[in-house]
Amino acid sequence: MAANCIFCKIIKGEIPSMKIFESEKTLAFLDINPLSLGHALVIPKHHGAKLTDIPDDQLSEVLPVASKIAKATGSDQYNILQNNGRMAHQVVDHVHFHFIPKPNEQEGLGIGWPQQNPGKDKLQSLLEEIKAKM
Amino acid sequence: MAANCIFCKIIKGEIPSMKIFESEKTLAFLDINPLSLGHALVIPKHHGAKLTDIPDDQLSEVLPVASKIAKATGSDQYNILQNNGRMAHQVVDHVHFHFIPKPNEQEGLGIGWPQQNPGKDKLQSLLEEIKAKM
Repeated sequence: MAANCIFCKIIKGEIPSMKIFESEKTLAFLDINPLSLGHALVIPKHHGAKLTDIPDDQLSEVLPVASKIAKATGSDQYNILQNNGRMAHQVVDHVHFHFIPKPNEQEGLGIGWPQQNPGKDKLQSLLEEIKAKM
Repeated sequence: MAANCIFCKIIKGEIPSMKIFESEKTLAFLDINPLSLGHALVIPKHHGAKLTDIPDDQLSEVLPVASKIAKATGSDQYNILQNNGRMAHQVVDHVHFHFIPKPNEQEGLGIGWPQQNPGKDKLQSLLEEIKAKM
């Protein structure tokens, strides 16, 4: 828990939320400024700003709960998104996964896809670098 | 396994890939048309088009592996994204989670955020509907 974290306050019940699911390590609630109806957040209760700050065992329920919410909302098209860092569109520094229904082109997540073509050699050397650090 | 699925073919080794990680149920490899250097895909080997098609136990390694890749690439800012359905920007119908570094404003994932304000009453009734189906 972090004293000034709005999501930690929601977990502790100090700030109300529209709770969909709660277990020992996971909480899910509606986003009050949704991109589409059904937009929900699934968060590990363990406080950490970025994905890499969360112990693996605290992440285990996140995707199953997101899947459960997708089923419960009856959404056919939807995005799961987790942002890390201001430039990557993170606003609250407590890891949260967005479940965002995409009911039509206008509502839901907008996606920009500036695809690159770095070439096989560059990718191959990058691959070796990454693998060496895994 | 699905006969005409490109990711199933990668899993079976029928199509080459730039593998970062492989275990019994999970595979990770570099995206060859990356949005930024380090853009990788983490997939459950279990074939299914959408998140809701994957059994919970086949999802357990996905986020830990994405976290491991984030650490290995040394990325500070990054997005985790999983798309379901054409309108939600899904191209390959085998569940895949994008790990996309956001090194600067131009590269990486572009995000559009058309926030709505449906009001508390509408959200409250939606919440009851969803909870009834969880």
